[in-house]
Amino acid sequence: MKTFDHTKYRPAAAVPIRQRQWPNNTITRAPRWVSVDLRDGNQALLEPMDVARKRRMWALLVKLGFKEIEVGFPAASQPDYDFIRWLIEEQQIPADVTVQVLTQAREELIVRSFEALRGAKRAVMHVYNSTSTVQRERVFGKDRAGITAIARNGAAWVKREAEKYPATEWVFEYTPESFTSTEPEYAVEICEAVLDVWQPTPQHPCILNLPTTVESATPNVFADQVEYFATHISRRDSIVLSVHTHNDRGCAVAAAELAVLAGADRVEGTLLGNGERTGNMDIVTMAMNLYSQGVDPELDLSSPDEILQVYSECTGFSVHPRHPWIGELVYTAFSGSHQDAIRKCLHQQRADEPWQVAYLPIDPRDLGRDYQAVVRVNSQSGKGGVAFVMERDYGLHLPRWMQVELAQLVQRASEERRGEIDSATIHGLFMQHFVVDQAPVTLEGYRLDRRDGRDVIAAHVAEQGAAHQLHGAGEGALAAFVDAWMRHGGQRLNVVDYSEHALASGTDAEAVAYVQLSIDGRRARPRHGERVAQGGALGAESRPGIANRNIRGG
Amino acid sequence: MKTFDHTKYRPAAAVPIRQRQWPNNTITRAPRWVSVDLRDGNQALLEPMDVARKRRMWALLVKLGFKEIEVGFPAASQPDYDFIRWLIEEQQIPADVTVQVLTQAREELIVRSFEALRGAKRAVMHVYNSTSTVQRERVFGKDRAGITAIARNGAAWVKREAEKYPATEWVFEYTPESFTSTEPEYAVEICEAVLDVWQPTPQHPCILNLPTTVESATPNVFADQVEYFATHISRRDSIVLSVHTHNDRGCAVAAAELAVLAGADRVEGTLLGNGERTGNMDIVTMAMNLYSQGVDPELDLSSPDEILQVYSECTGFSVHPRHPWIGELVYTAFSGSHQDAIRKCLHQQRADEPWQVAYLPIDPRDLGRDYQAVVRVNSQSGKGGVAFVMERDYGLHLPRWMQVELAQLVQRASEERRGEIDSATIHGLFMQHFVVDQAPVTLEGYRLDRRDGRDVIAAHVAEQGAAHQLHGAGEGALAAFVDAWMRHGGQRLNVVDYSEHALASGTDAEAVAYVQLSIDGRRARPRHGERVAQGGALGAESRPGIANRNIRGG
Repeated sequence: MKTFDHTKYRPAAAVPIRQRQWPNNTITRAPRWVSVDLRDGNQALLEPMDVARKRRMWALLVKLGFKEIEVGFPAASQPDYDFIRWLIEEQQIPADVTVQVLTQAREELIVRSFEALRGAKRAVMHVYNSTSTVQRERVFGKDRAGITAIARNGAAWVKREAEKYPATEWVFEYTPESFTSTEPEYAVEICEAVLDVWQPTPQHPCILNLPTTVESATPNVFADQVEYFATHISRRDSIVLSVHTHNDRGCAVAAAELAVLAGADRVEGTLLGNGERTGNMDIVTMAMNLYSQGVDPELDLSSPDEILQVYSECTGFSVHPRHPWIGELVYTAFSGSHQDAIRKCLHQQRADEPWQVAYLPIDPRDLGRDYQAVVRVNSQSGKGGVAFVMERDYGLHLPRWMQVELAQLVQRASEERRGEIDSATIHGLFMQHFVVDQAPVTLEGYRLDRRDGRDVIAAHVAEQGAAHQLHGAGEGALAAFVDAWMRHGGQRLNVVDYSEHALASGTDAEAVAYVQLSIDGRRARPRHGERVAQGGALGAESRPGIANRNIRGG
Repeated sequence: MKTFDHTKYRPAAAVPIRQRQWPNNTITRAPRWVSVDLRDGNQALLEPMDVARKRRMWALLVKLGFKEIEVGFPAASQPDYDFIRWLIEEQQIPADVTVQVLTQAREELIVRSFEALRGAKRAVMHVYNSTSTVQRERVFGKDRAGITAIARNGAAWVKREAEKYPATEWVFEYTPESFTSTEPEYAVEICEAVLDVWQPTPQHPCILNLPTTVESATPNVFADQVEYFATHISRRDSIVLSVHTHNDRGCAVAAAELAVLAGADRVEGTLLGNGERTGNMDIVTMAMNLYSQGVDPELDLSSPDEILQVYSECTGFSVHPRHPWIGELVYTAFSGSHQDAIRKCLHQQRADEPWQVAYLPIDPRDLGRDYQAVVRVNSQSGKGGVAFVMERDYGLHLPRWMQVELAQLVQRASEERRGEIDSATIHGLFMQHFVVDQAPVTLEGYRLDRRDGRDVIAAHVAEQGAAHQLHGAGEGALAAFVDAWMRHGGQRLNVVDYSEHALASGTDAEAVAYVQLSIDGRRARPRHGERVAQGGALGAESRPGIANRNIRGG
């Protein structure tokens, strides 16, 4: 057999669904979230969490607002057992939080699991057995009746043991493990056997949990399976329908979302998707997806950096820089057109209207991130990124023509350096190419008279040590000065563009002016690697230049 | 305004779709794949790829079997331009590969993009402009007519420039950027304007590409949008319908898959999902998803380690250990029940039947991974994992009772060490607890006579330096030896379980026997931290023991 050969795999079976409803639905409220970080996440680690790390994870989960937390598999692990005893004996469980433990449907494990929970006020006993054809035939060697007997016996042992601890409010949960690879009608049948034992009521419902133990079809197929189940199971009003998706095909979040459309009330998952193999559904992503659509996520995810820190300490993993919502690069735009659009939208975004910013699905500040991180500049950033950085970091609102010229300089520098250019480097390029350190001409003083719509200037300029008095007239101060300059015998100047703005508030604030000149008929342009000797220049802050702060208000 | 406040976001608009068809479909063949690694991936990196890395990525993409490769945005980047010139001038493009370049719908950029491609045999000119309400109102300040004019002009410039290079076979592609946030009927309208200019035919189709520029709804909504578009656009037989999904909500793969169900013919994406913000759709994941369902992925992904290496060199990123299909931990099972199931399924899996192994969606060997990595053992592995390791690494098929006892020893050791236990440690625990170094009794020789269904033994044993001759009888060699041992005055022995297997093939191969004894009425059990002094023991390989290789065949 060829090694890389798709013909050895079979497609998922179609679901016999009629009048499918779920694609017509939208999610308008958050499902009940269940964290399985302390169980599934823990048992999938190279280094299982020790007690200190379990406590840290527990504290985080409670703080984020989880009301149902699966705390372990105590019958299979002494550390899990000891941790659960600590939670109960040290009264660590808030009144509105329910702990849950997982057990296989085996008598001695069920007995031990109830022992682990003795003294809890309220708890979920979660029992499972495997139901797929492969599990039945190749792992357990039993037919449907034999597998159903495992479930029925498990349910009965759970019920019997629960009666021994009447002070605890028990909730029962059953999972037909490998549900997605189980025939839909048999999944219903085995769950009916469990319901017959537990006899749930609307007042005392039980939980039926449908996992994609191994994700093996497009997520719409899982939604079909969930809708089939939800519409074929009896006593629907006495059941909390739960799902637990895995990420083998990279679609765990999609599968959980579509399952909620299909009727699931409750979603089990982990923070940032930790768990066996490709991990469980990432609750942070799914909750933030709801948040970004205007739905209350019913979890407080406003401090993702704390989540990242505890996750990393407890699992030993870091998070990919592109991880949805919380990855390091998620609110970073590199391309110029993106940066330009973001800048324009941010300027127009009002605080009292819905968020409408291109390329930023949410305001990064919601998650404690900052606009500081939104824009970095590299060779493909274009003028938008350059303009953003100059405005954000230096308060300079460059006119469009200057954005274009500076962006070209930045692009060349970036290509030469083959990497990102920081804000200071961009400012350095700006100063180098547009601001003259030692101006060949300085304006020492002037007198400007405006009469009948005409300005007459008498300007004192210093040029290479010599003082000159210049006289000219024109419409406006600039025109008058240019006239004086040319009468004095200087180059033929034309002011192509002029703009100016204050650098702070207040009448005495410094200002900056941007002047684009053509000199002797040619547009003055900054040249690569050279200073602009004259013209094409502007005065920034208090630096000397032909257009300086003194002109402001003139 | 509160910072973490979902009320500032609006839900995605519903799509006016009737008689939705896509959930009834399944994917039975791979879409046309388009790699945008060299463009989108490149422009989203802290350190853009230099020419050497672009060449390495190009070589990989061609080797994997991509037939359409977007090679850059040459009008915006000199390195992209230079790279494309190198591809063409050095004849690096195989005859069956088409290169594609991206450009905004601006005349000077389109002119420059065609210049970059001069001399190419076949190329896709991919032009886009933004069409969403936010882009129209806040970025471009234009109404629908103004935005449509940008697209129409872009299409016309593309057509005009293409006519200047008649030696190249041109394919035109248009993207209404931010499609998912564009009103469905306007997306159709603007694309019709482009089609009116390009006049595609079934013989010379053009490509219309629908992106989730920012993923902002559950993936079924994107499928609805694609199906709406596919059923409302004219000249469907003259259009290649393409999609390009992003991963803002962690659903890029799901969205692309559901879009293919909804009629998309072609999927743009990157290797391992590189790209701006959360990245593009991961083609490796989607292709492997198809593969695992028996669909030919039409890419050769059999060497993922090479993909990982080039990806890492070119992007500077590593891949998360839980990344679907190729992450380091994806074929690793930690939990005992999973390991047990995998072991049983692998034993039963025949080479000539469809793959049916619980918890392993594909055979890891397909991707050059090995079963060596499948099972690691920690405190929660249980007997399945222990048995697997002993069999895989030492060829020892432990009987069930011994799996249980050894697993308990391994679990205790793992809990004490708080981490993973390697194969050698497990074997060490096995040797320590079940194999006696200095046997108190050794079998020096024997004579066994079987008559009338009864075995009579004369055994020479050495016990603490003294030689004894023992005589006994019973049904079978073991029974006879036990009888002899007890007649000699030894403890009361009962053989609870006995099994034996060869350690290699051939009649003279060494063998191993596993013997479970009760001694004086008590089951011999290994004790924690102590050697089993006698009984409960077995001889492994050539080590001396009361059941050794000489008994084999007796």
